Amino acid sequence: MVEVAIVGAGLMGSAMAFPLSDNGHTVWLIGTHLDDEIIRTCREKRYHPRLRRALPENVLPCFSEEIPRVVPHVQVIVSGVSSYGVHWVGRAIAPYVRPGQKIIAVTKGLEATEDGDLCILPDVLAGELPEDVRDRIRIAAIGGPCIAGELAGRRQSCVVFGARDPETVESLAQTFRTSYYHVWTTTDVVGLEMAAALKNAYTLGVGLAAGLLEGIADDDASDAQMHNLAAAVFAQACVEIEYILRTFAAPRSFSYALPGAGDLYVTCQGGRTMRLGRLLGMGYSLVEAQELMAGETLESVAILQVLGRALPRLEARGVLEGDRLPLLRALTDTVCQGQPVVLPLDQFFQTVPELQNSQSVRCRSR
Amino acid sequence: MVEVAIVGAGLMGSAMAFPLSDNGHTVWLIGTHLDDEIIRTCREKRYHPRLRRALPENVLPCFSEEIPRVVPHVQVIVSGVSSYGVHWVGRAIAPYVRPGQKIIAVTKGLEATEDGDLCILPDVLAGELPEDVRDRIRIAAIGGPCIAGELAGRRQSCVVFGARDPETVESLAQTFRTSYYHVWTTTDVVGLEMAAALKNAYTLGVGLAAGLLEGIADDDASDAQMHNLAAAVFAQACVEIEYILRTFAAPRSFSYALPGAGDLYVTCQGGRTMRLGRLLGMGYSLVEAQELMAGETLESVAILQVLGRALPRLEARGVLEGDRLPLLRALTDTVCQGQPVVLPLDQFFQTVPELQNSQSVRCRSR
Repeated sequence: MVEVAIVGAGLMGSAMAFPLSDNGHTVWLIGTHLDDEIIRTCREKRYHPRLRRALPENVLPCFSEEIPRVVPHVQVIVSGVSSYGVHWVGRAIAPYVRPGQKIIAVTKGLEATEDGDLCILPDVLAGELPEDVRDRIRIAAIGGPCIAGELAGRRQSCVVFGARDPETVESLAQTFRTSYYHVWTTTDVVGLEMAAALKNAYTLGVGLAAGLLEGIADDDASDAQMHNLAAAVFAQACVEIEYILRTFAAPRSFSYALPGAGDLYVTCQGGRTMRLGRLLGMGYSLVEAQELMAGETLESVAILQVLGRALPRLEARGVLEGDRLPLLRALTDTVCQGQPVVLPLDQFFQTVPELQNSQSVRCRSR
Repeated sequence: MVEVAIVGAGLMGSAMAFPLSDNGHTVWLIGTHLDDEIIRTCREKRYHPRLRRALPENVLPCFSEEIPRVVPHVQVIVSGVSSYGVHWVGRAIAPYVRPGQKIIAVTKGLEATEDGDLCILPDVLAGELPEDVRDRIRIAAIGGPCIAGELAGRRQSCVVFGARDPETVESLAQTFRTSYYHVWTTTDVVGLEMAAALKNAYTLGVGLAAGLLEGIADDDASDAQMHNLAAAVFAQACVEIEYILRTFAAPRSFSYALPGAGDLYVTCQGGRTMRLGRLLGMGYSLVEAQELMAGETLESVAILQVLGRALPRLEARGVLEGDRLPLLRALTDTVCQGQPVVLPLDQFFQTVPELQNSQSVRCRSR
């Protein structure tokens, strides 16, 4: 039996309590200062209002004030916040973490340094911990396709845990694995987290198709959709993820396995990023679309803002070739510079050596 | 201006007439003996009843009896039939083809020899042509994500033309390319056609999730779906396609580009294969499911029957390791042997060296 503190009582953090509880572990579900209403309902009704599901046994909901009491006594800490909360979690637990503890983060995102170097969020979190303890705490992260509401519903889910240290990641996998929560492990946590963050960026591109369809206001009696376009964007997303991972010496296989194509697929089945993409495709500006989605955490915007700053710097340093990322560039132009979305289809697939497009060559030689 | 004969007036064959017509080519749309009703409506009303769309200019619908009159005079022949019609098309046009003509096939599928070797359908078609002409006819094929109704609706579509001869494929691409029909080219027609055929097999696996969800008849107030499972199957499909392509020295990139992930994605957006998968997931046997879908061409069943015969032979010859294709094996067991569907999740992702699963190792060592 392991004692676990989940910090962040939103959808994904809270869903992690289900496999843990089913494995007989004791789970403190600690809300952030934004989660007070959720925690109150959890305590009064043993019911999670956002997951719309009864809280499982062995789960003890508590307010963020209880971090000092709970955190020092657990073996595992789950960082269950969005990318916007990573620094907060690090600072909140920093005074109370102890050597030997493990931290595993569900958060998907990246940060960038002034030079454009990309940092994965588990490292950002670790950066907030006291220096003397930091190296004696094991940090891990979760990638792969997992919608929180399905995990809480004990639907079959296949995910990847990553940590630089193989013993850490295997021990965490054993703590979490159930008959419905299938955990693969990797020591390539940088590749895992890059793929996990990038899929939020690229899902926005796939979502555009639905909006573009509505935008043409075509009274089409034969009801043609725009799945062909969405699929082309999906494929180019996989191709660009492959190129980025290759550039950073991360596993190229993560472009077509659970962390890349799998996670991209599940994110394209609906949710906030697809809704935002649809609004942009319909012609709303980013500001207008954000107003229509007020109150929702938009991880796709966060990651595209990071990449919009980082890419020109990485390009200037010769790390990446921006020409090879036409889809990502179109998306960052839209999110960072408010430009209307233009999908440069004829520039797609240039990094696939087995595919040629003489149209594109002609366009570029002008 | 090119003169083109499309043989097969079903959805995909007929949709090819739209970019051709928009480019000013003359198109004979020749129905097979199964298409008489379609051709009659096309001739009487200038309207395609299955595409539910007016026939474009320059398209001349005709019955299969006109093959002897039309085929000798065209520069390009499009084979627009399903995999079940490939031999028929080859035999029907064989007496009338002339050296220098190009044939391009939209059909997706494979055939297998007695030894289990897999043959792509353009080669099967070529095998029906007279020996003295065969080598002087250029054969090509089309892969990538393209729903016929969307192409006919002139929606943006990105596809790949493949032929062993680069001049053939580039010349065909120029004939078909429009502002909405974007054509990449490859000389790796075997990889292209294998990816195109395999996506029909694997889409059946992705479709299972929707049926499994209905099958558990869970009165779930929080409405959890099964997208996580579908995404895991999608990812494993990409991983197995990568393994198969690698085995046959075909481009691995086709697992995560337009021909693999892209085509798989579009096929998973709906249609016959997903409906069949859903029925199997609900617990119907293949026979029952086929009865419920009577009259529909089920390419997924065709390709899985081919693979179910070929795989054990390829495995016996040491060409492939069946253990590395747990999803495909589960699907062929269901389609060829009528077994209920069991998804062996813990055996997934074994060919991804960066991912470990000690659960699976434990299972396999027993």
